Amino acid sequence: MFEELRIKPIGVVETPFHEPAGTPIQPSRANGAQGKVRLHPQFWPGLQDLAGFERVWLVYWLHRQPASSLVVTPFLDKQPRGVFATRAPARPTPIGMSAVRLIGIQDGVLEVADVDILDGTPLLDIKPYVPEFDSYPASRAGWFDESKSQSRVADDRFREPVRTGA
Amino acid sequence: MFEELRIKPIGVVETPFHEPAGTPIQPSRANGAQGKVRLHPQFWPGLQDLAGFERVWLVYWLHRQPASSLVVTPFLDKQPRGVFATRAPARPTPIGMSAVRLIGIQDGVLEVADVDILDGTPLLDIKPYVPEFDSYPASRAGWFDESKSQSRVADDRFREPVRTGA
Repeated sequence: MFEELRIKPIGVVETPFHEPAGTPIQPSRANGAQGKVRLHPQFWPGLQDLAGFERVWLVYWLHRQPASSLVVTPFLDKQPRGVFATRAPARPTPIGMSAVRLIGIQDGVLEVADVDILDGTPLLDIKPYVPEFDSYPASRAGWFDESKSQSRVADDRFREPVRTGA
Repeated sequence: MFEELRIKPIGVVETPFHEPAGTPIQPSRANGAQGKVRLHPQFWPGLQDLAGFERVWLVYWLHRQPASSLVVTPFLDKQPRGVFATRAPARPTPIGMSAVRLIGIQDGVLEVADVDILDGTPLLDIKPYVPEFDSYPASRAGWFDESKSQSRVADDRFREPVRTGA
């Protein structure tokens, strides 16, 4: 239907997390873990005016994800779910996004907190977090609303041999 | 630093908006405009369990964006801003994301509302909107907080010849 699209990372995310097992599963469960976003110098002019935002969306390539699976058992659940109903990394298009806290910007490096991203992750985009566009605090959230899991970190499950289809 | 990455769309977004001028600038300003997300059949099993979510993130390719610019004047402002401090489409990696309202799912087609996306847009990913991960209602939002613009729709500005750098 569409041809292949080509993208080039604009920088890299540096974090204390070197392996999927043990990496926080979401910014809200990262206990403030800090990291750096290192932008390639050619893109530095695009950072103007960003410092006034409390949070930024990092959009990134899930580079350690070996293969996708259409049905997965999420970290927060015991039941298999359609991958589009989860935030699991095993997606057909391995693009992740995280609303991290922006601490400071200097020389093309963003200091960020609440990081749930693996070290060395290729960065695709930075967007400002704008509550009017992004915040729906009362939005009904399917199986997440029923999940009682308090898990904060990932385990090894997405490195297992990949199941295909439903 | 990184090699080029290749992605393939997983479907297409159909909306009433055929030209950038007049397209809502964000879901929150779309007055409920409806659209369809048509997923390629091979990905249908991944939609399991999605119907319980009130909103979904659509991640898509900004296919009508002719070129990127590192400094842009956003729809909601009169002043040039760094592109990473805006949600403008003229980004180095033309990936957009919108939290749209999910009305129903049937045969691999999602009926959605609050759509701010151009007709024919290649779809890259669908993620469930989860308030715990995505909602920060009190997050400080830089120049957006000072902007008094009530504008709801885009104009032609991002089809003009592209400025480069700062």
